[in-house]
Amino acid sequence: MEKLREIVREGRRVGEEDPRRIVHSFKVGVALVLVSSFYYYQPFGPFTDYFGINAMWAIMTVVVVFEFSVGATLSKGINRGVATFVAGGLALGAHQLASLSGRTIEPILLTTFVFATAALATFVRFFPRVKATFDYGMLIFILTFSLICLSGFRDEEILDLAESRLSTVLVGGVSSVLISIFVCPVWAGQDLHSLLVSNLDTVSHFLQEFGDEYFGARENGDIKVVEKRRRNLEMYKSVLNSKSDEDALAKLAIWEPPHGKFRFRHPWKQYLDVAALLRQCAHRIDALNSYINSDFQIPIDIKKKLEEPFRRMSLESGKAIREASISLKKMMKSSSYDIHIINSQSACKVLSTLLKSGILNDVEPLQMVSLLTTVSLLNDIVNITEKISESVRELASAARFKNKMNSSSKPTEPTVSLKKSDSGRIGCAMPINPRDGDHVVTILLSDDDHDDYDDDTSSNNADDDTINEKT
Amino acid sequence: MEKLREIVREGRRVGEEDPRRIVHSFKVGVALVLVSSFYYYQPFGPFTDYFGINAMWAIMTVVVVFEFSVGATLSKGINRGVATFVAGGLALGAHQLASLSGRTIEPILLTTFVFATAALATFVRFFPRVKATFDYGMLIFILTFSLICLSGFRDEEILDLAESRLSTVLVGGVSSVLISIFVCPVWAGQDLHSLLVSNLDTVSHFLQEFGDEYFGARENGDIKVVEKRRRNLEMYKSVLNSKSDEDALAKLAIWEPPHGKFRFRHPWKQYLDVAALLRQCAHRIDALNSYINSDFQIPIDIKKKLEEPFRRMSLESGKAIREASISLKKMMKSSSYDIHIINSQSACKVLSTLLKSGILNDVEPLQMVSLLTTVSLLNDIVNITEKISESVRELASAARFKNKMNSSSKPTEPTVSLKKSDSGRIGCAMPINPRDGDHVVTILLSDDDHDDYDDDTSSNNADDDTINEKT
Repeated sequence: MEKLREIVREGRRVGEEDPRRIVHSFKVGVALVLVSSFYYYQPFGPFTDYFGINAMWAIMTVVVVFEFSVGATLSKGINRGVATFVAGGLALGAHQLASLSGRTIEPILLTTFVFATAALATFVRFFPRVKATFDYGMLIFILTFSLICLSGFRDEEILDLAESRLSTVLVGGVSSVLISIFVCPVWAGQDLHSLLVSNLDTVSHFLQEFGDEYFGARENGDIKVVEKRRRNLEMYKSVLNSKSDEDALAKLAIWEPPHGKFRFRHPWKQYLDVAALLRQCAHRIDALNSYINSDFQIPIDIKKKLEEPFRRMSLESGKAIREASISLKKMMKSSSYDIHIINSQSACKVLSTLLKSGILNDVEPLQMVSLLTTVSLLNDIVNITEKISESVRELASAARFKNKMNSSSKPTEPTVSLKKSDSGRIGCAMPINPRDGDHVVTILLSDDDHDDYDDDTSSNNADDDTINEKT
Repeated sequence: MEKLREIVREGRRVGEEDPRRIVHSFKVGVALVLVSSFYYYQPFGPFTDYFGINAMWAIMTVVVVFEFSVGATLSKGINRGVATFVAGGLALGAHQLASLSGRTIEPILLTTFVFATAALATFVRFFPRVKATFDYGMLIFILTFSLICLSGFRDEEILDLAESRLSTVLVGGVSSVLISIFVCPVWAGQDLHSLLVSNLDTVSHFLQEFGDEYFGARENGDIKVVEKRRRNLEMYKSVLNSKSDEDALAKLAIWEPPHGKFRFRHPWKQYLDVAALLRQCAHRIDALNSYINSDFQIPIDIKKKLEEPFRRMSLESGKAIREASISLKKMMKSSSYDIHIINSQSACKVLSTLLKSGILNDVEPLQMVSLLTTVSLLNDIVNITEKISESVRELASAARFKNKMNSSSKPTEPTVSLKKSDSGRIGCAMPINPRDGDHVVTILLSDDDHDDYDDDTSSNNADDDTINEKT
């Protein structure tokens, strides 16, 4: 009884996690009933005869082919249909050939055919490219070929058998695919898209909150609030393990027809590139996270001095990733992340100047390790963020996203806003209309590393609409 | 033609990569021919009649169930057998129930049963635990239940149908399983074991070579030799991506009966724990690798001072992992990694003393970042190595590995060898018989960090047969 209640609870959890699962279950039931009714009420009656039994293949096809997402259903359906057709044709040929050889040799020849075909096809299944896309088709190929070859019917009967097998597989497969596409479809492509957007958001959330966590600005607070915040912060851990999901979804997405905003030949592979970079970033975050509550007590005054660039590096990277996520979500080209990347890079410069100035001379070596590892991780994150935004930009142009609409106020003149930060060292460019500003002038106030910065912006692939100007 | 040659080349590559694939292909062919001959020469003749068509299920079962590894074949075979049996029983009951209700309502009732069962079972497939182990069984359950429910036979005929279906599935399944086990078996468990051993070796190889690479002792050499060495070194990258393989193998291994040295209930899960730790280590190595050829020129004199502890940390960690790998490979308990772990930890101490002594005061901050990140990564690796050896120890006792045999010379008295290292700072304990020594005395020469070391050994879980003694 307790066990049963537990199962019900588990069922509710599974259903709530993704309500489309419940819908999918009903869809399978409906498809099965539809297809079986179709055959049940045929003139030759329920499956009592030879054709009837063959009609079982229709039900079987529905059960085996109907998968959760449209991509998976299509992939299995097409694999099954084509494999049945090809194997049927080959098996008919083999049968003809064998029947020419006389009554005694025929079964030996047929068995040899089956052996050779099965062994060869099984071996081909190990080819990486075949395994990735046609594994199921090869299985059905072996199956159909063996069944038709070894059936002892006469040739005309075999033709009937093959034909009815093909037609029933088609009926089952086509109804599965149609129901899968037209009744509350689950698109693997859409899922991949949403997964990437949500992963970008998660990483961005961590980076935007990192400053407050690291510098303990929120240490005093309700224990429950603190715990909830930490849980939210550690959601990035799901990004670390999303590779297999993403790979599977991308593999299915290429089977799907154009749908919604996704056109034909949508660059699904490019999603995996962005995801791989994002995972690199998440690995750095994972390392960074272990330093948030580290025991090394870095002297308060040094911490204070480093706070501003630290915060800015992580905050601006976070914002850049957030902009990339918005661009992806809305499926519009955007260059609003450039400004944040430039800001984060200039914070890197400031930090390196600070470090060069020798403020760390009094720090204990072990504290230094902790501190400098954090620096190096943040540096990595800034670099990876640039790569992520580049990759999203490539994705946007490969997928032919629309250009960003400049909604109400389209600024025709470059607009400049200058914010002098607290430390007095970091100049920070801010577009007047953060989302809509087309033209942005970055003014850098750092006064001692002009040359460094020059090197940096040249490798920056800055968009045309971002003008870099130095004081 | 060119295409064909390419396919042949690909085939040769796939075959050479793992020759068991070729054997597997032949096994599938043989199983198929065996099972089909069995039915082909039955008194009721080749598959011309009702029973004959049912006999097709045997062939089908072979094609679908026969997988590469014994574990996969068993898992599918058992899933299929049990699901067919249970579904057959339930479907018979449903049929009985429906036939009581009269000619008109019967089909409606049957269809309702099918709908409800299919929808429910499809939903249950989403349960994580079901999905992991019984996904295929649930599929076959839906299939068999629907087929038997919807067949329009009378009850006695249905009993015949269900019986022959079950018996053919059994014949197909059992022959697949038997051939899979007794003809050149491929054990998923053995594969998992070998994979872990080889991954341990790869990581150990990197760590043992790291010193030479980092300190450029081998910079001048034939370009080809250098490249080959780098390729060997970067083999650790395969460890980063082995998670999905390991998970899949472990999932299959639990289905396998005892074989070779693997007993019943071999702790396969524990392999995943070791593998996870090893992957953490490989991630650190990946980061470390990027520093080997880094452009930061650390002053030669400082590099020289740090060389000894650096080399020792990585070399001794590498040796510890190598010992763990040997223990796993031979399936014998071992404690010979303890000594290497102690050595690597004492090198950590020496390094931290060195750093405290202020030798880094003149180093540029950016060089410092590179240098100290390396230190912090090596530190992590030493710590993870300890966890790995602990985890291998747990694995060894969970799997009831034999105790290490002390082959020829069993030392009854503790034997001590003392090697004073070049730097004059690191005392290094060496067992006289590196593999066979049961008793080892570690003598530490470091003269300024007794207290630190005390703290350290207490958390060291040192084995009873390692005696720590200080000068």
